[in-house]
Amino acid sequence: MVGKLKQNLLLACLVISSVTVFYLGQHAMECHHRIEERSQPLKLESTKTTVRTGLDIKVNKTFAYHKDMPLIFIGGVPRSGTTLMRAMLDAHPDIRCGEETRVIPRILALKQMWSRSSKEKIRLDEAGVTDEVLDSAMQAFLLEIIVKHGEPAPYLCNKDPFALKSLTYLARLFPNAKFLLMVRDGRASVHSMISRKVTIAGFDLNSYRDCLTKWNRAIETMYNQCMEVGYKKCMLVHYEQLVLHPERWMRTLLKFLHIPWNYSVLHHEEMIGKAGGVSLSKVERSTDQVIKPVNVGALSKWVGKIPPDVLQDMAVIAPMLAKLGYDPYANPPNYGKPDPKILENTRRTEEVE
Amino acid sequence: MVGKLKQNLLLACLVISSVTVFYLGQHAMECHHRIEERSQPLKLESTKTTVRTGLDIKVNKTFAYHKDMPLIFIGGVPRSGTTLMRAMLDAHPDIRCGEETRVIPRILALKQMWSRSSKEKIRLDEAGVTDEVLDSAMQAFLLEIIVKHGEPAPYLCNKDPFALKSLTYLARLFPNAKFLLMVRDGRASVHSMISRKVTIAGFDLNSYRDCLTKWNRAIETMYNQCMEVGYKKCMLVHYEQLVLHPERWMRTLLKFLHIPWNYSVLHHEEMIGKAGGVSLSKVERSTDQVIKPVNVGALSKWVGKIPPDVLQDMAVIAPMLAKLGYDPYANPPNYGKPDPKILENTRRTEEVE
Repeated sequence: MVGKLKQNLLLACLVISSVTVFYLGQHAMECHHRIEERSQPLKLESTKTTVRTGLDIKVNKTFAYHKDMPLIFIGGVPRSGTTLMRAMLDAHPDIRCGEETRVIPRILALKQMWSRSSKEKIRLDEAGVTDEVLDSAMQAFLLEIIVKHGEPAPYLCNKDPFALKSLTYLARLFPNAKFLLMVRDGRASVHSMISRKVTIAGFDLNSYRDCLTKWNRAIETMYNQCMEVGYKKCMLVHYEQLVLHPERWMRTLLKFLHIPWNYSVLHHEEMIGKAGGVSLSKVERSTDQVIKPVNVGALSKWVGKIPPDVLQDMAVIAPMLAKLGYDPYANPPNYGKPDPKILENTRRTEEVE
Repeated sequence: MVGKLKQNLLLACLVISSVTVFYLGQHAMECHHRIEERSQPLKLESTKTTVRTGLDIKVNKTFAYHKDMPLIFIGGVPRSGTTLMRAMLDAHPDIRCGEETRVIPRILALKQMWSRSSKEKIRLDEAGVTDEVLDSAMQAFLLEIIVKHGEPAPYLCNKDPFALKSLTYLARLFPNAKFLLMVRDGRASVHSMISRKVTIAGFDLNSYRDCLTKWNRAIETMYNQCMEVGYKKCMLVHYEQLVLHPERWMRTLLKFLHIPWNYSVLHHEEMIGKAGGVSLSKVERSTDQVIKPVNVGALSKWVGKIPPDVLQDMAVIAPMLAKLGYDPYANPPNYGKPDPKILENTRRTEEVE
């Protein structure tokens, strides 16, 4: 009798223990699952507000943003095809550049002023406002503007032509950023800004000589920094080659950016104003040109428009022309033969005009 | 025999189950503990890097920082006791102001330029760079500078005199911020900048008339914004009253800031260069004055130094004098009688000199 009682007791205890083991086991699995969820900061629900989670990572509508993200910076001297470049990339479903922010080059220029004055640098260091602190503040400011002035996307891009006057600095602020430096025959850029009266700080639109001098200075600065950060980070894109052979160059470009190919980049004109497409600003000077398909209409408009004395001194005024592969005495140089499709686009464009 | 075997088997199973229950129980407690740690973003280990956790909250060495934190902004026309004010607060163990950042007023001025031009505002809006986006970027920039240019503390404070030219804007960026606008007899401020040759942008140090005019313009701007944000957010602090009756005014001040009293604020000179104390910059113009205890030595140095024609036109040149309680024709006005301790400090200060 006692034996059977003992047995029943043991059995009862065993059942209770088994149930407890089962319950605790389930609980432990749940607990683990919850910890795993929290370790993956990017798996957040869509939200309209910015949430900062994880180490230095913020999220805007499910895309994380932080200083180590793969940003794309497009720039160059204005009137060099920078808007076309960003519009073509904007057409890619995974890339968003958006309009010129206008403020980014200004704050970069301000920062550059502080850094260049040794007196000021000392004062700032004394105040605890070291390079590290300033960089942190600059990263924060630039990211907020870039991320929030347009739609979210896996690859964010910024186009403010003169931002690349701080190319090297941007490369330091954003270690995984890549740079596209738009290069164009300076004679064409200058003819464009003068004939269209596009105000650019420091450029005297009454003088081809002055504008070419300033073009040379600006492109030299940016070109040198492009070389400095190296071919893995910075790619030169010649406007002429882009519009003559868009597919070839867009394929090369996207490979450089490590972004998968998408045919939409060759038809940016079909994506104007669309979601995930090309957002244009009414007040930007290139908008009415960039709504057209890629065409070669703008390559040689400058020919015959530059004063003879400037033509004579061209190589001296603008040595960067030769350095970038443009014969300073050829009016115009032979840029190349357009792809057949582009010839068609150009014909259609001219018909409309 | 079978019965005893069964019993032994049951006993063995029971032992195994008990051990398992014990193990799983321990594990579950550990797991819970880890989840709790993660739910409390502010209870982080001290770390030298900034970690962002939770909603729009970042942490620097265990103190969270975000746009809703209780910041203190001190400002006014330079040479109005702004450094003394921040030094006295710096002496408080829970408050850290630190040196002038120099960059904060400049970026605020830049932002103000963009906002004031209606043309520019339209262009920015078209680019998606709306007020909301700009504010977000400004908050980010300012916070990084304020937080990282000095030691951490529960209450962070910033002193850049002319930052308060953007007082209203700062109040909007940082809804829980409070403002201390230093006010001083303009004649004393101006005498100080001229006699000490303190360069201030826009002030012609060769002319008392010009400096008083500029003093008037500047203090009027800041005073109006102080009134605009209201007495709960902005407090006027008269330099003269602060140095004549420091304990009374520091008690009022700390109550306004909702910060507990601490006697150290009356002995800032003992906290120079100490941890949790007053950090001074070698290159700031007030450093050699602020290492002394609070004294009334600087109240009336201006008397007899202002050209007679300026004295005659004083009320017209600087109407803010009267508005702020300074008789424009009294040279000097009767600012009041110093507390006994301060009389002692002043005597000792003069002996050293």
